[in-house]
Amino acid sequence: MSDKIYVIGHKSPDLDSVAAAINYADFLNYVLKTDNYAPARAGEINKVTAFVLDKFGFKAPELLEDAAGKKLILVDHNEASQSVDGREKAKVFAILDHHKVNFSYEEPIYLDIRPWGSSNSIIYSLCKIAGFKIDKKMAGLMLSAILDDTVITKSPTCTEKDKGIIAELAPLAGIDDWRKYGLEMFKIKAGVGDMTAEGIIKNDFKDYEFKAGKFGFGQIETVDLSEFDGRKEELLAALEDMKTKNGYRGVILFITDIMKEGSLFLVAADNTEEVEKALGAKLDKNQVYIPGIMSRKKQVVPKFTEVFDK
Amino acid sequence: MSDKIYVIGHKSPDLDSVAAAINYADFLNYVLKTDNYAPARAGEINKVTAFVLDKFGFKAPELLEDAAGKKLILVDHNEASQSVDGREKAKVFAILDHHKVNFSYEEPIYLDIRPWGSSNSIIYSLCKIAGFKIDKKMAGLMLSAILDDTVITKSPTCTEKDKGIIAELAPLAGIDDWRKYGLEMFKIKAGVGDMTAEGIIKNDFKDYEFKAGKFGFGQIETVDLSEFDGRKEELLAALEDMKTKNGYRGVILFITDIMKEGSLFLVAADNTEEVEKALGAKLDKNQVYIPGIMSRKKQVVPKFTEVFDK
Repeated sequence: MSDKIYVIGHKSPDLDSVAAAINYADFLNYVLKTDNYAPARAGEINKVTAFVLDKFGFKAPELLEDAAGKKLILVDHNEASQSVDGREKAKVFAILDHHKVNFSYEEPIYLDIRPWGSSNSIIYSLCKIAGFKIDKKMAGLMLSAILDDTVITKSPTCTEKDKGIIAELAPLAGIDDWRKYGLEMFKIKAGVGDMTAEGIIKNDFKDYEFKAGKFGFGQIETVDLSEFDGRKEELLAALEDMKTKNGYRGVILFITDIMKEGSLFLVAADNTEEVEKALGAKLDKNQVYIPGIMSRKKQVVPKFTEVFDK
Repeated sequence: MSDKIYVIGHKSPDLDSVAAAINYADFLNYVLKTDNYAPARAGEINKVTAFVLDKFGFKAPELLEDAAGKKLILVDHNEASQSVDGREKAKVFAILDHHKVNFSYEEPIYLDIRPWGSSNSIIYSLCKIAGFKIDKKMAGLMLSAILDDTVITKSPTCTEKDKGIIAELAPLAGIDDWRKYGLEMFKIKAGVGDMTAEGIIKNDFKDYEFKAGKFGFGQIETVDLSEFDGRKEELLAALEDMKTKNGYRGVILFITDIMKEGSLFLVAADNTEEVEKALGAKLDKNQVYIPGIMSRKKQVVPKFTEVFDK
């Protein structure tokens, strides 16, 4: 039997999830003097991830479709509903994450969870303490993931810790102007012209189980919200379709304009009044733009927890 | 309003819980250059804790009876049912623990959980990395807690990590023979002659919520099981009484003989057949001695999880 331990992020992986799998596997192999740790992914990589992997010379990690019987280390998530299929029949050894915790396991394992802006900030911090030398290639991947997850430091999830790490990583990665590079990444993310409605919704999508039912939250970032003007009806129809087919209480896409620093919410839900309560805003034709909201983790999920988890 | 943050262990605190509160508060004040962190306890201290605090010149931490509205850091536990009353109305900033995880919280916080033999081993490791100088007094408290939680390294929860830390701490604490000192501690623990049945059961007691209902597990260690010979009926009656009054599915006391390396189980439960399944042993008059079982965390709770958490 293989000793291989897969380091794997959440379903519908974003850049932080894929980069954390690669970088944490690399770090663990170094610290534990082995090559047992292998990065994996729990779904298709998105456009900006493909761009960054290519830019810094990485291959996409192995796609793991069923983790049953496998050994796992989870990165960038902890909730069972966000994990690779088969996790309930896998052996979990450790978790490294920066999200809220909703986790239980039958025996003690390692958990390193910190309320920072990205999983890669935690991995950077571990590398520094362990004296692991981060090369240019890895620095580029880490920096990109942190810039992506913190919306170029504009997200309310971004901490002083993340800002300090970005400043240290940029020169290591040979990036002179990280703000400019971040905008370049977000322009690539924002090009939705060739994406299907489902592709846009699933670009960065997470399930959350509340006591009142399951919600799905998709988020996409743009540098110009008007790019979505002609596609709202199509996106709302796709949300409604997902909700019905998969038994969600609600499926919500929010399109975050990182220049304006606010998000447009598109909602399909059984009870829109409750969703309005959670959003703190009235919907008009199942839509509402809310200034200041940029983070699913810090601003959206906690409000839904208040309303739907009582 | 006070900025005070209480570092607090579980209810019915054992030595590791009390020592972790003292030592982690000390460490956090050092690292964060503050004096905001204060140790607290969620219940009366037990006999061996009183002995160790006195031996190394510590005061018992402040008793916190209701944590509502307070700021907390939890040590040596994570499950809500084991926490100080009022935790649901407190703000939790971080958790340091070595038990299985069953935790959820509405926003990201710090969690440092490692499957080692004691919470103090994790704190020792943090001190070492941060360059915090452990003085003789603190070394004595840490060493005592690790020896207590690992049953002088005999428990299956004891890892190589714990053994290495014990070897490093003993000279710092001025303890020549840690095995001999550990036995001295366990002889003090084992003196139950002056304890009430309830005192024995609650000496180190934890609630666990399974899907099938709530169980309470008390554990007491002895160097000579025969000391309990005359008290089994009295203990069984007290267990039955606790079960009825507090709505438990079952209340179980196990008396661990650290010399023989096995435990005598005394059981009050709604359905003893299911408990027999979890224990893997037949009860005779609600009692059974099982060789090799020494750890609630590693050997008892996982089996009950299998049977009662499906």
